Amino acid sequence: MRDSLIAAAFRLFLERGYEQTTIDDIVALAGVGRRSFFRYFPSKEDVVFPDHEKCLADMTAFLEASEDADDPVVRVCDAARLVLRMYAENPTFSVQRYRLTKQVPGLRTYELSVVWRYERTLAAYLRGRFAARRDGTLRADVIASAVVAAHNHALRAWLRADGVGDASAEMDHALDYVSRAWTSNAPAGDAPAEEEDDVVVVITRRRTPMWRVVRDVEAGLGRE
Amino acid sequence: MRDSLIAAAFRLFLERGYEQTTIDDIVALAGVGRRSFFRYFPSKEDVVFPDHEKCLADMTAFLEASEDADDPVVRVCDAARLVLRMYAENPTFSVQRYRLTKQVPGLRTYELSVVWRYERTLAAYLRGRFAARRDGTLRADVIASAVVAAHNHALRAWLRADGVGDASAEMDHALDYVSRAWTSNAPAGDAPAEEEDDVVVVITRRRTPMWRVVRDVEAGLGRE
Repeated sequence: MRDSLIAAAFRLFLERGYEQTTIDDIVALAGVGRRSFFRYFPSKEDVVFPDHEKCLADMTAFLEASEDADDPVVRVCDAARLVLRMYAENPTFSVQRYRLTKQVPGLRTYELSVVWRYERTLAAYLRGRFAARRDGTLRADVIASAVVAAHNHALRAWLRADGVGDASAEMDHALDYVSRAWTSNAPAGDAPAEEEDDVVVVITRRRTPMWRVVRDVEAGLGRE
Repeated sequence: MRDSLIAAAFRLFLERGYEQTTIDDIVALAGVGRRSFFRYFPSKEDVVFPDHEKCLADMTAFLEASEDADDPVVRVCDAARLVLRMYAENPTFSVQRYRLTKQVPGLRTYELSVVWRYERTLAAYLRGRFAARRDGTLRADVIASAVVAAHNHALRAWLRADGVGDASAEMDHALDYVSRAWTSNAPAGDAPAEEEDDVVVVITRRRTPMWRVVRDVEAGLGRE
């Protein structure tokens, strides 16, 4: 019933346009009553985005199942991938909806409010994980926002390409780009942690006498 | 006329609630006709956010006046400060609106679409500045989003504190937090550029023979 309402709605949206289609048109084509429509969808907008509520619930459950050992930034990137997976399950539908959303301002606004809910879900998780940090809530808000921006960047590139190609490779690249800048425990802007096994970094002033440089290098190399 | 419509609208919104106030109520209290209202505001939502159009235009002009020598990340942070300035010009009004927006879902959605327009304005500027970079559009989208998140984090903290205190100090701190992570020309996650005058960074592998370490250090110090 739910699926046939979605199918009927999209057929009409594409044939007549979104604004020109009424809920009565949709239920008539699906062969059900008005009350059946409202049992599944609070409004006409909701039939356009039928799976976000479930995806938000899945994301929340996924984050709640996180353990202390999980890197929080990696975890929110993986949580964001759940949204891509939902879109990638049905490329044709996702591409149709993308085109529709671009044309109808009301749907664009609806989508912004959905994106906002994903972002706040990620931010709430990060705020918990960063609770002990100075600037923890700021860090949480900024990273949640950056992850959502990177996710949407890759998602839209894939939708613009008509859902053809490997969405997950582009997604990995975009999310990596963000997580590299905000690696879990390092303060923002720090260099990646040195690989302890084989790299040593020495910082020295230009006027430092050479004997002190050598001493510091040796200490860094563990040869003291 | 415009100001008295805004004043009348807010008086009624606070007294009766937003949903319970009609445009007819507003024009009656302001002593003008309905057509005057629509000359200034396309809808009831717009009277709640009367200054965003001007602020968006100011932001666009500010970014267009940017020169190549300007650091793009610093420039978008300064552009975001224009929004804070608008709020800080009238703290009482801003705090009232903040409370109203939290209560009325339709206003929350309206605000999200305004925030989206600011974010796309910043992103469009950054896309231009990063056009020659690999991942330039990704970088632009992520930084625009992070700057907006940091701005809104500081702005909301100030609004929650009833508009008391120095909003700009908290804003500087939040925007610095983002720009440190995305310093203009370094790729994300890189260390801050060394201060050329007095600091040298040497990276070496643990197993490198000491003669090569010393040679590299000397080269780094410019003593070759």
